[in-house]
Amino acid sequence: MGASNDTTEVATTRTDPTATTPDTPAALLDELALANRILFHQDVVDGFGHVSLRHPARPDCFLLARSMAPALVTVDDIICFGPDGEPLDARGRPVYLERFIHSEIFRARPEVMSVVHSHSPSVVPFSVVRDVKLCPICHMSGFLAPAAPVFEIRDTAGPASDMLIRDRRLGEALARSLGPHAAVLMRGHGSTVVGTSLRQAVFRAVYTEVNARLQAEAMRLGTVTFLTDAEAAAASRTNDGQIDRAWNLWRLQAEGKV
Amino acid sequence: MGASNDTTEVATTRTDPTATTPDTPAALLDELALANRILFHQDVVDGFGHVSLRHPARPDCFLLARSMAPALVTVDDIICFGPDGEPLDARGRPVYLERFIHSEIFRARPEVMSVVHSHSPSVVPFSVVRDVKLCPICHMSGFLAPAAPVFEIRDTAGPASDMLIRDRRLGEALARSLGPHAAVLMRGHGSTVVGTSLRQAVFRAVYTEVNARLQAEAMRLGTVTFLTDAEAAAASRTNDGQIDRAWNLWRLQAEGKV
Amino acid sequence: MGASNDTTEVATTRTDPTATTPDTPAALLDELALANRILFHQDVVDGFGHVSLRHPARPDCFLLARSMAPALVTVDDIICFGPDGEPLDARGRPVYLERFIHSEIFRARPEVMSVVHSHSPSVVPFSVVRDVKLCPICHMSGFLAPAAPVFEIRDTAGPASDMLIRDRRLGEALARSLGPHAAVLMRGHGSTVVGTSLRQAVFRAVYTEVNARLQAEAMRLGTVTFLTDAEAAAASRTNDGQIDRAWNLWRLQAEGKV
Amino acid sequence: MGASNDTTEVATTRTDPTATTPDTPAALLDELALANRILFHQDVVDGFGHVSLRHPARPDCFLLARSMAPALVTVDDIICFGPDGEPLDARGRPVYLERFIHSEIFRARPEVMSVVHSHSPSVVPFSVVRDVKLCPICHMSGFLAPAAPVFEIRDTAGPASDMLIRDRRLGEALARSLGPHAAVLMRGHGSTVVGTSLRQAVFRAVYTEVNARLQAEAMRLGTVTFLTDAEAAAASRTNDGQIDRAWNLWRLQAEGKV
Repeated sequence: MGASNDTTEVATTRTDPTATTPDTPAALLDELALANRILFHQDVVDGFGHVSLRHPARPDCFLLARSMAPALVTVDDIICFGPDGEPLDARGRPVYLERFIHSEIFRARPEVMSVVHSHSPSVVPFSVVRDVKLCPICHMSGFLAPAAPVFEIRDTAGPASDMLIRDRRLGEALARSLGPHAAVLMRGHGSTVVGTSLRQAVFRAVYTEVNARLQAEAMRLGTVTFLTDAEAAAASRTNDGQIDRAWNLWRLQAEGKV
Repeated sequence: MGASNDTTEVATTRTDPTATTPDTPAALLDELALANRILFHQDVVDGFGHVSLRHPARPDCFLLARSMAPALVTVDDIICFGPDGEPLDARGRPVYLERFIHSEIFRARPEVMSVVHSHSPSVVPFSVVRDVKLCPICHMSGFLAPAAPVFEIRDTAGPASDMLIRDRRLGEALARSLGPHAAVLMRGHGSTVVGTSLRQAVFRAVYTEVNARLQAEAMRLGTVTFLTDAEAAAASRTNDGQIDRAWNLWRLQAEGKV
Repeated sequence: MGASNDTTEVATTRTDPTATTPDTPAALLDELALANRILFHQDVVDGFGHVSLRHPARPDCFLLARSMAPALVTVDDIICFGPDGEPLDARGRPVYLERFIHSEIFRARPEVMSVVHSHSPSVVPFSVVRDVKLCPICHMSGFLAPAAPVFEIRDTAGPASDMLIRDRRLGEALARSLGPHAAVLMRGHGSTVVGTSLRQAVFRAVYTEVNARLQAEAMRLGTVTFLTDAEAAAASRTNDGQIDRAWNLWRLQAEGKV
Repeated sequence: MGASNDTTEVATTRTDPTATTPDTPAALLDELALANRILFHQDVVDGFGHVSLRHPARPDCFLLARSMAPALVTVDDIICFGPDGEPLDARGRPVYLERFIHSEIFRARPEVMSVVHSHSPSVVPFSVVRDVKLCPICHMSGFLAPAAPVFEIRDTAGPASDMLIRDRRLGEALARSLGPHAAVLMRGHGSTVVGTSLRQAVFRAVYTEVNARLQAEAMRLGTVTFLTDAEAAAASRTNDGQIDRAWNLWRLQAEGKV
């Protein structure tokens, strides 16, 4: 795939009359909008990046904001997308070029309920250096074990792409790189992290960034002892019971109350 | 010890009728709640970590928040724990899995009045690199002399633990690693710092993090001249008379007034 | 050029009666004042640095704040400058010593509509190390391809200048170093970034700083895979359609609303 | 000098009846209190560090806050000190142990009007690595040329001091290390920076910290080209005319208005 001439945001509206937009509980929309703002306040996303939620009633669909900075997302900005990654109720609102990250991972990984894509700053360097792997350096990031794979877009799109996951074929290739892992790095781009719940995906996105920062620092000190796979698995199970402790703080930070 | 199946927070309530919950002066509870918030605002703790205070009237007991983010702790969240690390007045509130860090250090170190456990970010890298020791690089952190020991949980729990100090046996092993020192690093996890007062423990936790950041930076420049043991001891004694200078600032920062 | 004795800000007022100050739409002045504040809030400028806009009605003229910290600029602080870099309506207000950065680049690059000069902190190190080039490490900074040139003021001003672009001759030399590129580093000083719109220039200034931070970090991990020139060009074209997504966030951040 | 047993703040009050406390213009006290707060908001000082001003009417005296965190200093906290470094009007208020940094530099350097002492974080690493010198890496810090000397307290106080400049003899030794320079690093401690005005001293303290951060980063990239002595001198002269541009911003930041 070469560089597209499409240099503006795609404002696709799917008008297939057989498509129906499923209803979504208001509490879920609130939670997804909040997740957007949390990812900004925890320095995972800047003006770019996005987080999706598999639709609770229609598992082949997912919810994702219109194309905008995550920090500004409210419930009114959330759109439902169909299994092909095209919006069901865009009503002219522009959508993210890279929505196929979400559609293809949701298809490939039935247990995944939420996907976070970001350019979080400590992770990008690990995506561009071949001989180094992002591995769990501490118990907070056991979910990374044994190591996060790296997606090389050139293998699918050739040497002249615009680096974006802008169609289903690239989304499928990314999902294959992700495989059964919790996170996949994207060379010269960022990362994509998944979870079996929205809060778990956000938690993992935050601690993927933390792990990268700690690991880079530790590697400059000397040879690093990483978690064993068994330690990582056990720590990850324990942390899955602790996510709300962080979430409750992050929510208040996103609301400017802490 | 292998990974536990217990992946949620333990909500143990001790109902032994012979146990009595000692009264605690309100000013001490205020101070302990404030210490929690200070540790957050000084970037020592994020959603995780905790700080305890030995009970002034019952030295075999200690005060510690219920399981929650330190930044949000108020006096109503503080629970009294008995010598076995179990809560005396939990009333159903969940408690920290790692309360045994506190119970076993208070037992082993009678002069210690306060314990801070954190994952402060500059310290974790020093916990995972064997050939480097955290040593006092400047007068603010003389209490680290001659070097902070590192606790390797594998030596006690084997290669498949969830990395947490989740029972008394692990707490005892950690206390042995700490020995007579002011701080002990925990491999792939964080650190635990002690003081003869709450303010001293908080002060040391802050400057342990500062020292780690400065030392990592200095080691990249060249060979570092650390404080001699005598310099470290003298500086530490002097700083013990200066703690309130920092505390008064930190309190106002935690209250959003600076 | 040796060090000047002029150690205060130049308060030149051009009184040539044939000069007329062109009218500027209020919306453009608002946008330029906002750009100043955005560059501060995104950590591109501190008390120093500046951003200019080619005059829409008089392409030989440009708009630039009076000499002051960018964070404090309002529309009343914006002055129109003539093709020689001298102010048309200073009315005694002091002007930037380095206004010739802007005048000479606007002359040499007719398609450029905006110029940002800064000392952004991650970029300065790349300006003083000869063997390293600032190259696009990720899709957000494709505009840097193939690499940012470095301007050595000694080649024009000799070994005793005050490092500033304080006359037209130095501005011309800087413009020659810039050539057809989007950014030029200035040895021991900072960088200058250009765009075909104000928002594009600001976007590029922000992501030049981001790229420098990521690249420095990645080079410490190992050998870096940079974007190919074709990837960089394609990514840059795509991003040109996404600039408002970041701008909308940055505006709210500059207004203290996020 | 060995470690002192004096581990609390000295609350010396000079009661010599021949001493008179000179009047100080209120505007100067305001400016000095503001300088304290600026140094905190620009990350030069934390709970520790101090800034002094030579008394305008009594050049053998100087003004300095009582012992407290700089961020909290108001005009009521400022004390006048005599030529021996002892307070003239302490009225029981505790004073800084290290006031002799100020008294002895004011004595040795008649043209110096202000002294800043800090533990600013990027500078400490340069104080503990012998083979690296802090040199001007960019035009903002030309005042550092040719390189900041390093004061080794062991040469005067022996191997067991508490690292502090706690008497006149140590202050004299520090002043000798400073010599004619603008800044002196203090091994395992921090730095002291001087200026011919309060604003210049604050400006230099801020950009000493900035220079250290940039230089450490640049040295990791490769061999650094520093400013020539002539470039540094010329840039320093120019910047002396630009200090208010930064000061006006810093004042508003300290007041929470930016």
